[in-house]
Amino acid sequence: MKISIERGALLKAVAQAQSVVERRNTIPILANVLIEAEGDSVQFRATDLDIEVVDKAPAMVERAGATTVAATTLHEIVRKLPDGALVTLTADTAAGRLTVDAGRSNFSLATLPREDFPVMASSEYQSNFTANAAVLRRLFDKSKFAISTEETRYYLNGVYMHVADGPDGKTLRCVATDGHRLARIDADLPGGATDMPGVIVPRKTVGELRKLLDDDEMDIAVSVSETKVRFATPDITLTSKVIDGTFPDYTRVIPQANTRRLEVDASEFAKAVDRVATVSSERSRAVKLQLEADKLVLSVNAPDSGAAEEELAVAYGDERLEIGFNAKYLLEIASQVDRENAVFLFNSAGDPTLMREGNDQSAVYVVMPMRV
Amino acid sequence: MKISIERGALLKAVAQAQSVVERRNTIPILANVLIEAEGDSVQFRATDLDIEVVDKAPAMVERAGATTVAATTLHEIVRKLPDGALVTLTADTAAGRLTVDAGRSNFSLATLPREDFPVMASSEYQSNFTANAAVLRRLFDKSKFAISTEETRYYLNGVYMHVADGPDGKTLRCVATDGHRLARIDADLPGGATDMPGVIVPRKTVGELRKLLDDDEMDIAVSVSETKVRFATPDITLTSKVIDGTFPDYTRVIPQANTRRLEVDASEFAKAVDRVATVSSERSRAVKLQLEADKLVLSVNAPDSGAAEEELAVAYGDERLEIGFNAKYLLEIASQVDRENAVFLFNSAGDPTLMREGNDQSAVYVVMPMRV
Repeated sequence: MKISIERGALLKAVAQAQSVVERRNTIPILANVLIEAEGDSVQFRATDLDIEVVDKAPAMVERAGATTVAATTLHEIVRKLPDGALVTLTADTAAGRLTVDAGRSNFSLATLPREDFPVMASSEYQSNFTANAAVLRRLFDKSKFAISTEETRYYLNGVYMHVADGPDGKTLRCVATDGHRLARIDADLPGGATDMPGVIVPRKTVGELRKLLDDDEMDIAVSVSETKVRFATPDITLTSKVIDGTFPDYTRVIPQANTRRLEVDASEFAKAVDRVATVSSERSRAVKLQLEADKLVLSVNAPDSGAAEEELAVAYGDERLEIGFNAKYLLEIASQVDRENAVFLFNSAGDPTLMREGNDQSAVYVVMPMRV
Repeated sequence: MKISIERGALLKAVAQAQSVVERRNTIPILANVLIEAEGDSVQFRATDLDIEVVDKAPAMVERAGATTVAATTLHEIVRKLPDGALVTLTADTAAGRLTVDAGRSNFSLATLPREDFPVMASSEYQSNFTANAAVLRRLFDKSKFAISTEETRYYLNGVYMHVADGPDGKTLRCVATDGHRLARIDADLPGGATDMPGVIVPRKTVGELRKLLDDDEMDIAVSVSETKVRFATPDITLTSKVIDGTFPDYTRVIPQANTRRLEVDASEFAKAVDRVATVSSERSRAVKLQLEADKLVLSVNAPDSGAAEEELAVAYGDERLEIGFNAKYLLEIASQVDRENAVFLFNSAGDPTLMREGNDQSAVYVVMPMRV
């Protein structure tokens, strides 16, 4: 294999590939990226056995072929090369070396045979559809904060992407929850997605996917089977196993009959929560909300370090209510609100509370109270 | 005590004070900042028993007095208050509380009695002089990278500030070394500094001092005794114990007779070292320099991961030389060069190498070679 490629294109492709590589590997070849050159392009492929990313870049291919080389080392080298440099990659299969040449810099890296590189088996996808990058970004960005990190309930370690019945018909829905809070985000169902099986997209895949979704105009080809999900742009293909488990029936958790309605400027609310939480001990971080006519008092009482109280002018017309929440959870859901006021719907101090952005039904958050 | 103070002025004063407070303290009061209000100003004092910082800010003092409160909590609260807020601090000595009021936010923090706060004993300073902030900044910034982190040779855990005989008479000199590399930086001796005893300024003090030196025009009042050093601006006074030990005779380490002269663009050199070091194993990080007529070849050979080589056009007219260095040390001294080319003076592959910036004698660096 011998190819020449512009440093910028190479850096982009290698950066995307190396980020799925796990830093600590017991299987040496999983630290490598598979480089395959043919025609007028080169492919960089990396995997952790659960996720595989393939990144294609245009290159001058002088001699087709393939090899594998340490992903992080290659990435570091390319990153440090001067902007605009032309980089030549030459594989010497007999010597087990890849040389990287750019200007007066020469590197010789140890390779492992391409045959040893685990390529993810291709599968039949039941559902293939196209979704806009901005739509997917919203679905995952607004739900991922609620993904559980507890390994015992592994089926909560991802975002449940499925087709659901929304208020105005079928929707493409993403749900995540850790048992303390929940996010349910809806988008218009793309054509061809009706038969999509519901899948739990793992946390790491959600993170890798995010890098494909920066360009608002980009269309993403989505393929889903019972066991795998694939997201593809013209250059990058991200394939991932999905979590093998059943996502719990989240609909029962979403309160339907909460009537006490608080409307508050989301940013002011978040800042006030952050301020009063300053005095609380790291462990509990409980914030008390006291509601009465058009007034919200946030308070924290930490016997050791002190107390804090802040008053906010709000819209509230129901009877008095005192309810406590974990400050971190309140901050996280408040920071999801980007356009309108945050609307909270309470029942009692012991019941789950619902939050949404204005009257928008397409993004709903639930947070469990805590005793204060 | 009751005072009102603008949030910006309060934040600046508290930030400076809280940064000397150690995060983990067995003595509770050392986590606190002492607030003393009198006349038309308030003082914030913090200490770790080795360093004491006192920061003064203008305030409306309604009731003079003093108290102590957790430094990091106060800092966090003030940081989160809205810009431009007027903050009122009220101490209730009987209740052992300090209230912090700003707009609709109220905080009540636990206090400890001012009597328990350890105020550093004042001392007689043998030498008092004024030095420009930019001059002090250069002295410490260019030497601190070489401070040792080994606790066994505790007398190397700081910068040795002393009066020395420079090429053009007496100079104010800062030296730091860890036995592998050394930095010797000279400045014109300020009036009144002639009798200054040589002191080893501890690493943490150097870091705290740096925050006083951002303003080029500022004059810093420096006071030095055998046991303490003090740096003061009109608002901030930083007092520190110095390291109780003898700094070794560094002059013997600085080679006088190195004749093989290499001149190289410092930035190009640093980038090339950084690139070739990419393939080396984390542990050794040895870079080989091969010198011949006007040519420098940098190379790294790491049996496991690979090899790297880069050629630089340089000015070199002596006989061939091969010499190895720790890549990190080379990068650090190369990054000290800000105006001119780096000039290296070598003797043999086993002898210490000298580096300076062009022909400037006021900043000299020494680095020990390593076998490659």
